[in-house]
Amino acid sequence: MVPGTVVRSIKEAAVKKALGPRMALYPMPVTLVGANVDDKPNYMTVAHVGIMDLGSISLGVNKVHYTNRGIIANRTFSVNLPNEGLVKETDYCGLVSGTKHDKADLFETFYGALKTAPMIVQCPVNIECRLVQIIDMKTHDIFIGEIVEVHCDEDCLDGQSIDITRVKPLLFAMGDPQKFTASSSYYKLGERLAPAWEAGKPLLKKD
Amino acid sequence: MVPGTVVRSIKEAAVKKALGPRMALYPMPVTLVGANVDDKPNYMTVAHVGIMDLGSISLGVNKVHYTNRGIIANRTFSVNLPNEGLVKETDYCGLVSGTKHDKADLFETFYGALKTAPMIVQCPVNIECRLVQIIDMKTHDIFIGEIVEVHCDEDCLDGQSIDITRVKPLLFAMGDPQKFTASSSYYKLGERLAPAWEAGKPLLKKD
Repeated sequence: MVPGTVVRSIKEAAVKKALGPRMALYPMPVTLVGANVDDKPNYMTVAHVGIMDLGSISLGVNKVHYTNRGIIANRTFSVNLPNEGLVKETDYCGLVSGTKHDKADLFETFYGALKTAPMIVQCPVNIECRLVQIIDMKTHDIFIGEIVEVHCDEDCLDGQSIDITRVKPLLFAMGDPQKFTASSSYYKLGERLAPAWEAGKPLLKKD
Repeated sequence: MVPGTVVRSIKEAAVKKALGPRMALYPMPVTLVGANVDDKPNYMTVAHVGIMDLGSISLGVNKVHYTNRGIIANRTFSVNLPNEGLVKETDYCGLVSGTKHDKADLFETFYGALKTAPMIVQCPVNIECRLVQIIDMKTHDIFIGEIVEVHCDEDCLDGQSIDITRVKPLLFAMGDPQKFTASSSYYKLGERLAPAWEAGKPLLKKD
């Protein structure tokens, strides 16, 4: 096949296999979402996040979670980016619930502009959000937060830019959704490949 | 400081610098979003994506984009994951608009279950979505799509799991938002670090 070809049927694209409907938008950044629940800091692991416009982000969180109550009560939350060194703690915060375990015990907590969104000192990037909307889905609350302030470890900054290679973030990909706890993993960020809004410029010549 | 400490003021967390409100939820997976516009396939580069519940995803797209019209008209779109080898083409699709350039010319296009969501053969993972909601933000349309079908290159599958290390996806991080075109980059995925819902189990003992 040559570029520009339209293959009208998936069967003609012989290398492809249809997997049925499943989540496949990976890898995603792993976050620890902070909220005060009954005035105590709590953290839960969330990789099902998103960017809406440049000032707001989303969290897709199952309604069963303990932390949701704090987000709704205070209308604030934080999004903390753990680094590679925190992989055990990060996974642990996804294994146990704040109903039974004091997960803030693992970290040092600080508060910023919003006063009620607890943040983790050990995470190199911390984003404070004001809750602006909840999308009510069948099993999930989608929390949409407006970013109010960002805190970053000074040694991860390159001028005013956050140098993501120094942050050393954790990435998550789910495997087979039928047995996702056996086939899902955390990954490191790899090397810088190319500059954005630049790498494609050689192709401009063809127009 | 010892774990469990609450630092009441950011000033006490001396390593941190406040950067003001800015997008900092990176890295994100880079996608090529496909839509038919006036019955012709078109692709645009979108890294501001998200996972809502396990069956639906979001795209945060500035309203100026040509592709939006096709998504709204057909109420379908595709999310294609380009690999490292497509970095030039992917960047190019973010540099030029479908109003002036036939970007489908770069790829082979196929259609699947939805018939009107064009997908890219060269991208190892293709997600077909039905538009279910639009969140109308000031400058952006947030398109929420229900996943209807996923197609994957057979050589990226490990049983029923998509092996993201074989996909070799592109990741994106924005740098300084004041000069983002000079400080934003594409990155590779790094190595597998640890299994999810497993790595944190040693910490269960401390409870």
